[in-house]
Amino acid sequence: MRRSRGEGCDGAGDVSKPTPISGFPEWLPAERIVEQQVLDILREVFELHGFASVQTRAVEPLEQLLRKGETSKEVYTLRRLQADAAEDSGDQASALGLHFDLTVPFARYVLENAGHLQFPFRRYQIQPAWRGERPQEGRYREFVQADVDIVDRDTLSVHHEVEIAQVMADVFGRLPLPPVRMQVNNRRLIEGYYRGLGIVEVEAVMRVVDKLDKIGRAGVEKAMVDDLGASTEQARGALALAEITGDHATIAEQVAALGVTHPLLDEGLAVLVSVLEGTAALRSDTFTVVADLAIARGLDYYTGTVFETRMQGFEHVGSICSGGRYDSLATDGRTTYPGVGISLGVTRTLAPLFSRGLLTASRSTPTAVLVALPSEEERAACTAVASALRRRGIATEVSPTASKYGKQIRYAERRGIPFVWFPQPDGSHQVRDIRSAEQAAADPASWAPPDADLRPATTRTAAAAAD
Amino acid sequence: MRRSRGEGCDGAGDVSKPTPISGFPEWLPAERIVEQQVLDILREVFELHGFASVQTRAVEPLEQLLRKGETSKEVYTLRRLQADAAEDSGDQASALGLHFDLTVPFARYVLENAGHLQFPFRRYQIQPAWRGERPQEGRYREFVQADVDIVDRDTLSVHHEVEIAQVMADVFGRLPLPPVRMQVNNRRLIEGYYRGLGIVEVEAVMRVVDKLDKIGRAGVEKAMVDDLGASTEQARGALALAEITGDHATIAEQVAALGVTHPLLDEGLAVLVSVLEGTAALRSDTFTVVADLAIARGLDYYTGTVFETRMQGFEHVGSICSGGRYDSLATDGRTTYPGVGISLGVTRTLAPLFSRGLLTASRSTPTAVLVALPSEEERAACTAVASALRRRGIATEVSPTASKYGKQIRYAERRGIPFVWFPQPDGSHQVRDIRSAEQAAADPASWAPPDADLRPATTRTAAAAAD
Repeated sequence: MRRSRGEGCDGAGDVSKPTPISGFPEWLPAERIVEQQVLDILREVFELHGFASVQTRAVEPLEQLLRKGETSKEVYTLRRLQADAAEDSGDQASALGLHFDLTVPFARYVLENAGHLQFPFRRYQIQPAWRGERPQEGRYREFVQADVDIVDRDTLSVHHEVEIAQVMADVFGRLPLPPVRMQVNNRRLIEGYYRGLGIVEVEAVMRVVDKLDKIGRAGVEKAMVDDLGASTEQARGALALAEITGDHATIAEQVAALGVTHPLLDEGLAVLVSVLEGTAALRSDTFTVVADLAIARGLDYYTGTVFETRMQGFEHVGSICSGGRYDSLATDGRTTYPGVGISLGVTRTLAPLFSRGLLTASRSTPTAVLVALPSEEERAACTAVASALRRRGIATEVSPTASKYGKQIRYAERRGIPFVWFPQPDGSHQVRDIRSAEQAAADPASWAPPDADLRPATTRTAAAAAD
Repeated sequence: MRRSRGEGCDGAGDVSKPTPISGFPEWLPAERIVEQQVLDILREVFELHGFASVQTRAVEPLEQLLRKGETSKEVYTLRRLQADAAEDSGDQASALGLHFDLTVPFARYVLENAGHLQFPFRRYQIQPAWRGERPQEGRYREFVQADVDIVDRDTLSVHHEVEIAQVMADVFGRLPLPPVRMQVNNRRLIEGYYRGLGIVEVEAVMRVVDKLDKIGRAGVEKAMVDDLGASTEQARGALALAEITGDHATIAEQVAALGVTHPLLDEGLAVLVSVLEGTAALRSDTFTVVADLAIARGLDYYTGTVFETRMQGFEHVGSICSGGRYDSLATDGRTTYPGVGISLGVTRTLAPLFSRGLLTASRSTPTAVLVALPSEEERAACTAVASALRRRGIATEVSPTASKYGKQIRYAERRGIPFVWFPQPDGSHQVRDIRSAEQAAADPASWAPPDADLRPATTRTAAAAAD
């Protein structure tokens, strides 16, 4: 990630050194290698769990994007530079916008292709999304998301809510991140509890309690009583629920101690306990799952389990992995496709680690071996050595110039390439580990670097968590 | 790829079955698996040759995109839906557009990050690009490109032109495509030849000869004589060059037989012969490289080697892989970064094969094993079996329902999942290959499917070429 620079145009007409665009982060090659390894882990875990890859187009009809009213201000709309008059009349029915998440496009994809899909349908999707928001750390105008969802037709079994949590627990068990804490709640539990308390404006109260961090206990109580007609007792009851956190062993008891009963509460609590139990074995020093009954994702379309995830030391960027169960996002009026899913914010997770230098690659290139070039005339022979190594999966370059060997070794050093190969005048070969300067005879048909050097490795600086 | 459909809105208000948007192709899961395997091969070959991955943001300043005048009409511009007045004034200096290729963004990335890169810099880039063109087969509004480029500072050695051809020869040797024919030429060769003929308007003549396919020999001759002031002899000389095709053994002799001499001609011819020689060993039944002296890419910024590639039976979609050497695309006024690169049109290559059903995956999911569920109470035990298989890299799902085994087997069949795992009442396990119905005892800690079944396989119907 390029640091901000004061320098800009150098005054040479329209040819000048370009500068970054705020909110559109790009990575340097070593950072991109880390991002690729993170994406490889995501893909591998998702596929091991039987999720099929889907990519959707970058654009959706604007009217689809605006169905969720609260995001309308953030949408980028598209226009052809040489659009004709009809196209430019601002007709929303044909206007296109860039998608702002991967859930709305996926719901559309399911409706459009339902006849070609098998349900329950398990898909993952890793793509950029765009929002015209004011950029800050953790909020970008272009950002990569990695989503998994399971959708079924008409009904969706609750065990899939457990399963989505297990998939992300597997993911976090393998990603090179500071410790993360996944917070789980269940909107049925909240709704049942509120109804048990006699609260009528359930949705509105959820939205108020969701602001607890911002407006505090007194603010929530005041808004519930003054604006939503709740009693002080109901307001304090709602706050008491939001203060509960716990694990599978303690959560049911803590909720029961509040003395509220309702069938929806029992139903939601049972699912919550299942999610906690289903991920208990996957907890580690760097990954914890807790019930946090303050989590509601109040402005979203969730109807059951809800997830948020925070990274230790980086709580200020917000939740890096959020989702939940949605019963009616995808419907064509005849058939409804309920689903459950979760979305990892890849850019939101990695950008703060990159900008602090806490996550780096051992080299800035895939190349493991540089074949040194004794003279330009021997380029074909050196290319043959490179081909032999590549055929056995060893990333290899031939030196760009037949300069002095010292200069060729520096070419490798600057990129972190660990090995330099030296063809000998007698037709034999030597390979040198330029870190130790150890050099030995080698055969291009059989030599291989140690496994640890075959590909660049991601290195995490442990200081990350203490940042 | 969804076929065109007559059906559209079902009249249920704004909730209706969505339909595809012309020019924005999307793939069904089995097609996406094929695309992923193609992208995996591209990445693997590019990395084996030491190219580092770069991703650039989807947007560039509009003024950057419009520096190549001829593509201006195809650019999509962006606007925030709730843009303020200043933003909406149409100021091109701050306006953003979607990139229409990966070369212009890469040239900008090199200038912006030159201080952080090592030169010669080798990068690959696999991303979508967007053009507001009228869609047809082979021409899309959103399409995936896979580019490799090598750029150096101030000067770039000619052997990199050979190297780029070798990389793509390696790629085509591994892609599951109908036979392809890569056509190579060299603009120095053409320029030198034209100058040797006494032609002054070299660029203009290249553009006219580039239209040979469309306007014919007589049209080229007429345009050269009438519009460009060439002599009939010069026009026929230019046409004679454009008719030459050949390989490394014959091309120099054929050019020499035309009796034209010029230092640039010799220089370009030497590079062309090197490219042909450097790829001769990589030719096969399905991949050929030929010199085709009619190829000029007349409207582009190339200054040396130029490439085009056509797929047998699909010549009508145009070149699927084009590129060449460019000496002055990236310059900040002080330093120039000459480069050579090539771009494979992934969407243009795959879409015609998908729409004809000629390239498919053996299943529509990564899942290799479905663990059958004897009863919902045994879900945790079945999940433990799935976890054990996943830990050894075997993609596994647990059956979504504890329905009759026949129904669970059909769940696997419909997705092409080859194996169903049956936990037995006595705690032992059986696994069935549902294609052969062979069933045997198995241990979740050690059983593995045959390598061929571990992942979905891409199948190409050989009829492709004869389409």
